Amino acid sequence: MSSDKQKAIVLLSGGLDSVTALAIAQSRGFECSTLSFDYGQRHRAELDAAQKIAKNMAVSAHKVLKIDLADIGGSALTDDNIAVPNTPVEGIPVTYVPARNTVFLSMALAWAEVLAANHIFIGVNAVDYSGYPDCRPEYIAAYEKMANLATKSAVEGQALRIETPLIDKTKAQIIQLGLELSVDYTQTVSCYQADAMGRACGECDSCRLRRQGFIDAGVLDQTLYQ
Amino acid sequence: MSSDKQKAIVLLSGGLDSVTALAIAQSRGFECSTLSFDYGQRHRAELDAAQKIAKNMAVSAHKVLKIDLADIGGSALTDDNIAVPNTPVEGIPVTYVPARNTVFLSMALAWAEVLAANHIFIGVNAVDYSGYPDCRPEYIAAYEKMANLATKSAVEGQALRIETPLIDKTKAQIIQLGLELSVDYTQTVSCYQADAMGRACGECDSCRLRRQGFIDAGVLDQTLYQ
Repeated sequence: MSSDKQKAIVLLSGGLDSVTALAIAQSRGFECSTLSFDYGQRHRAELDAAQKIAKNMAVSAHKVLKIDLADIGGSALTDDNIAVPNTPVEGIPVTYVPARNTVFLSMALAWAEVLAANHIFIGVNAVDYSGYPDCRPEYIAAYEKMANLATKSAVEGQALRIETPLIDKTKAQIIQLGLELSVDYTQTVSCYQADAMGRACGECDSCRLRRQGFIDAGVLDQTLYQ
Repeated sequence: MSSDKQKAIVLLSGGLDSVTALAIAQSRGFECSTLSFDYGQRHRAELDAAQKIAKNMAVSAHKVLKIDLADIGGSALTDDNIAVPNTPVEGIPVTYVPARNTVFLSMALAWAEVLAANHIFIGVNAVDYSGYPDCRPEYIAAYEKMANLATKSAVEGQALRIETPLIDKTKAQIIQLGLELSVDYTQTVSCYQADAMGRACGECDSCRLRRQGFIDAGVLDQTLYQ
């Protein structure tokens, strides 16, 4: 790996979107390090998926940080007492994790500063998303502005960019883009309640969006369902 | 405790500034919950101090969250291989922890949303500070703007305020203000390398600023030194 490559941190959940974001970052010539979070999520299988994908896609480093969001609560994804809904809901659903992207980006910002990486890739999406406020372009723009006032590197002149290559794409477009970049979607886990083997429920919001994406893209859905 | 009180989260390190910020928040009538971080810092004694102070000041809840900033590295406060300097330095010192306040505020933001607290108090200070970029008013303003786009509560109309009651005060002014509010500074630990009993080194940046603060305030410094 050449040392004159620009460095990037890629937030890698192990789902379809984040893996596509990683493939895009690599295709743009970035030397990528990937970051996953063990935040007490139900769907632990995504952590295994992220680990495998990071290895197969030959990233520079892959880090899994433990953050106790379950201790804070307030989400179906981290609280066993709140069920993941199997039918679409109006407004922001219970799978919303309070301030999740803000917490994730902040840890990425810390690591970016240590690695001297000036780009953070996050696979957020404002089209086929679940109504989460922290996936919107105006949020990302405000985060980037804040980040550029937050760190020693920024103060010393190294501007930081939050890269959101998927933000204006439909799920079908993301899949098509990923396939052009040879992403192996069979390795990804999107389901909010995947079982230990990574098999999807096929019914939660995330499964529905993913399944429809494959249909709309005209691509065979090879996801393993329970 | 009355239920019509406004709720606030107070970031409580266990040091002089954060305890004063808590006293101010309580004096303004907020029902306060306090948040500390076990982030791999050398000065673990501050966590014990925070716990005791939270109890003595009768907060609604005190939470200690573990965050693995040491795994990210890049600071004398979390890396035993980087020494804490005992003489003043030019520019941003090695005790700077990459993106620390951004990470702390983000976890506070998550908890604030769960508790329905619309105020987060942080004892940052832009006068007698150590040159940390994430203690400046322009950083805090940008953080607040971002936070108001980040969460479900904000999107649903609950504006969030980041409260920095100490930001324009000297250390002496902070001490005077705290004493008026009956803060017991003997319980606080400011030293970057306090020993297990909470005794201060008297030489690091944080000790120097604190010691000078007591001198300037004309108040007896009852800090226990090693």
